Amino acid sequence: MRSEAEVISYLRRRFPAGGSLRVGIGDDAAVLAGAGRRDWVVTTDLMIEGDHFLPGAPARAVGWKALARSLSDVAAMGAHPRYALVALAVPRATPSRWVRTFFAGMAVLARRHGVKLAGGDLSSAPQIVVDVQVLGEVSQGRAVLRRGASAGELLFVSGTLGLSQLGLLALRRGRVRRTPLLRRALRAHRYPTARLALGEALVRRARVSAMIDVSDGLSTDLAHLCQASGVGARVLAERIPAVELPADLVRRFRANALELALNGGEDYELLFTVPNRQAARLPKRLAGVKLTPIGEITRGRRITLVDSRGREQPLQSRGWDPFRRR
Amino acid sequence: MRSEAEVISYLRRRFPAGGSLRVGIGDDAAVLAGAGRRDWVVTTDLMIEGDHFLPGAPARAVGWKALARSLSDVAAMGAHPRYALVALAVPRATPSRWVRTFFAGMAVLARRHGVKLAGGDLSSAPQIVVDVQVLGEVSQGRAVLRRGASAGELLFVSGTLGLSQLGLLALRRGRVRRTPLLRRALRAHRYPTARLALGEALVRRARVSAMIDVSDGLSTDLAHLCQASGVGARVLAERIPAVELPADLVRRFRANALELALNGGEDYELLFTVPNRQAARLPKRLAGVKLTPIGEITRGRRITLVDSRGREQPLQSRGWDPFRRR
Repeated sequence: MRSEAEVISYLRRRFPAGGSLRVGIGDDAAVLAGAGRRDWVVTTDLMIEGDHFLPGAPARAVGWKALARSLSDVAAMGAHPRYALVALAVPRATPSRWVRTFFAGMAVLARRHGVKLAGGDLSSAPQIVVDVQVLGEVSQGRAVLRRGASAGELLFVSGTLGLSQLGLLALRRGRVRRTPLLRRALRAHRYPTARLALGEALVRRARVSAMIDVSDGLSTDLAHLCQASGVGARVLAERIPAVELPADLVRRFRANALELALNGGEDYELLFTVPNRQAARLPKRLAGVKLTPIGEITRGRRITLVDSRGREQPLQSRGWDPFRRR
Repeated sequence: MRSEAEVISYLRRRFPAGGSLRVGIGDDAAVLAGAGRRDWVVTTDLMIEGDHFLPGAPARAVGWKALARSLSDVAAMGAHPRYALVALAVPRATPSRWVRTFFAGMAVLARRHGVKLAGGDLSSAPQIVVDVQVLGEVSQGRAVLRRGASAGELLFVSGTLGLSQLGLLALRRGRVRRTPLLRRALRAHRYPTARLALGEALVRRARVSAMIDVSDGLSTDLAHLCQASGVGARVLAERIPAVELPADLVRRFRANALELALNGGEDYELLFTVPNRQAARLPKRLAGVKLTPIGEITRGRRITLVDSRGREQPLQSRGWDPFRRR
């Protein structure tokens, strides 16, 4: 398979939305007409040991993160999560305690957001496989899609980008002194926060025209949003709220803060667009999270990055694609 | 992990139903209060290459069966399926054509039952992993659970049991002459039928007190139903609608029709209980499917099998358990 996008584009044509299926394949979640003035938002997200997380990751973190990923999709629709279903497969020799700790980790996050674990499936597999579905609710017609951005609108991102990837680098390196920054990065990587309160606040307080969660990396998720909206974007590198990387880590990890922020992924922050006039009224923090304007939406399909000297160059999607060879 | 039942019992205590979650962990599907007079029924079912289907299985059959398994859970609640979400992971080298054929197989079955493919997730994995969620609807409070059976009621099963397992034996054997029976068995194994029309007809026309689909095998699924209901059962071996096995296949496959019917699994027929008086009014065929009374529900927790000479012995659960060593 060449790329995820190729298959999804095929599936969108083959299985179009319509009728009570308000939004089908290709957004962060599907939107189904509910009764009364509510729509249902549903999403499913696979997580596979070795492909999505390192073998030997703590059970508690695996359970937490599997739910957080799906919650983040619900946040990106501006919806409120209600129920989760969990399909879990583990190798036959896995101790029961691993499974209980996995669910304990998930339960902490579920309780925090008032999500009920409604059911699931349990099975065996050569490696750990988790698929979590979340069902959420949103006022009728108010789900924020990827496809609503227009030229001239401002592009915002929440929080800090690149932390999760820094945490992954630290894990891969093994023995590293755990500075406060690295502890924060590890926590962001293992126990990410879905921006649910922010997503709902944005729907209530700002005319957000398009939104996506930054799960694959800013460069890739921005491309998803632009493609769905039929627009381009210009991003100012200096504005990107990248993790601040001390010189010793830059050297030891051969890491670059901008590169982590653009292509790292798994930050689960929200990337959204707002009409210019609305943007002025947007607070600097909302629901406890920093909001940063990082660029603007443009006509055409080009996505470019402007560096500190004002030089503009194409911004390639170098985030996560499951079918790209690494 | 010792058994699936052990973990599910733990999860039921840890995540109880209540409020708008009418039925939680432990049934064929969860039941959520919808608006108006409808409940939502949701289920998720994992299928993993090597564990749930043979490597090299045709893409069309994998797609069909992955959806059929979840539809069967919806049928066992007496509900009507509306939407499906599909999480699919395949090895990186998988041709795009495989993925398209997988979805084509699924689409045929989805169209037959008016199910809309609403969304999903696409990822990479060392082997093929599919997780399908189906959302269905049922009249408020009318979902049929596993837990409603009472002593004295009659136990019925639909269709023929053991065909799917016979198909699997034929596949494992490789070169076997495809007699009409084996072709039927292969079809049952690869393209199973979810008894949706039957499930809905049973809810409308009969006072079905408990129901489950025969996915793990009659011996195991009957134990699930009895345990949930706090009852036992007595099954008459001669009544079980087992596949008719010609002597040459008995010899060559070292197979036994009763054993295939009891422990084979993947028949996706419906096993249900009906109060005695209602049972007399139940037709021999409903929604085009044969219904066979195979025994009765008893007090206590014993599940027994009565052979042709009237001898009664315990019926062990020897169907599918993902954590039993084979």
